Amino acid sequence: MQTRRILGLDPSLVACGWGVIDVTGNKMQHVAHGVIKPPTKEPLASRLTYLFNDIVDVIITHSPIEAGVEEAFMKDNAMSALKLGQARAACILAASTHGLIIGEYAARLVKKSVVGTGAADKAQVAHMMNILLPGAKVKVGDAADALAIAVTHANMRRPLR
Amino acid sequence: MQTRRILGLDPSLVACGWGVIDVTGNKMQHVAHGVIKPPTKEPLASRLTYLFNDIVDVIITHSPIEAGVEEAFMKDNAMSALKLGQARAACILAASTHGLIIGEYAARLVKKSVVGTGAADKAQVAHMMNILLPGAKVKVGDAADALAIAVTHANMRRPLR
Repeated sequence: MQTRRILGLDPSLVACGWGVIDVTGNKMQHVAHGVIKPPTKEPLASRLTYLFNDIVDVIITHSPIEAGVEEAFMKDNAMSALKLGQARAACILAASTHGLIIGEYAARLVKKSVVGTGAADKAQVAHMMNILLPGAKVKVGDAADALAIAVTHANMRRPLR
Repeated sequence: MQTRRILGLDPSLVACGWGVIDVTGNKMQHVAHGVIKPPTKEPLASRLTYLFNDIVDVIITHSPIEAGVEEAFMKDNAMSALKLGQARAACILAASTHGLIIGEYAARLVKKSVVGTGAADKAQVAHMMNILLPGAKVKVGDAADALAIAVTHANMRRPLR
């Protein structure tokens, strides 16, 4: 009878619980468990990478084939924040696991840095990007904001680590 | 004079903007930009992995050495949700980028599944884990919850992909 090895994850950036069990038919067996505590004083990118890498270590050590993750139920604004948090982590982890120096800049700061006012709209940001970066030909929208973030990082020289 | 290549990221799970610029002294130059749109109908783990992998592709293609990411300002509950979202993404990405089948289970469902009531407290969950999984010797806390999530995944057999 086939054994399924399952990893359970209780996500937290402070104390992330993990547990591994074996399941054969109706029989379950404990394999291992632990808690991952990323260093609280490190910048976010380091803590996320610490958590990511430690879970990867657990996976490599115990070779589970399935994982269960606690689902998050939130309402309205909190649900938007949760989704944004997930997208941010994917961005930060992609950069941090490939050795990039990472800085974070508030939207208002980005607008003020490239347009001169924190209240600038997306059209103004895109317009300034095409002036500051000849040949960019970027349209109003997300990529123009991303270029503005890169320009702000260049000007502020504020690496987080 | 040294050129710094900088990646800007505007995180979103729907449309994530990215832009790459070169900075030499006071001179800035556009390199490339784009928008990553993970398939909206895929499960969360797939969308996060799609976003993560596409950003890794951008990094490998353009070799930036620094990254700027938009900072998120939130209040109270939304900030907690943002942090949880980030921790969840690190967990889900560690599992999904290593090929695991992933399921998500609400906290109430996990408690109901292992204790019999969705209102069970952490002590009851740990107690049941030590009964269901002889030898676990797990203490009250995060790792007991993680084992309970693994047990729930085993019982529900509800892989998300």
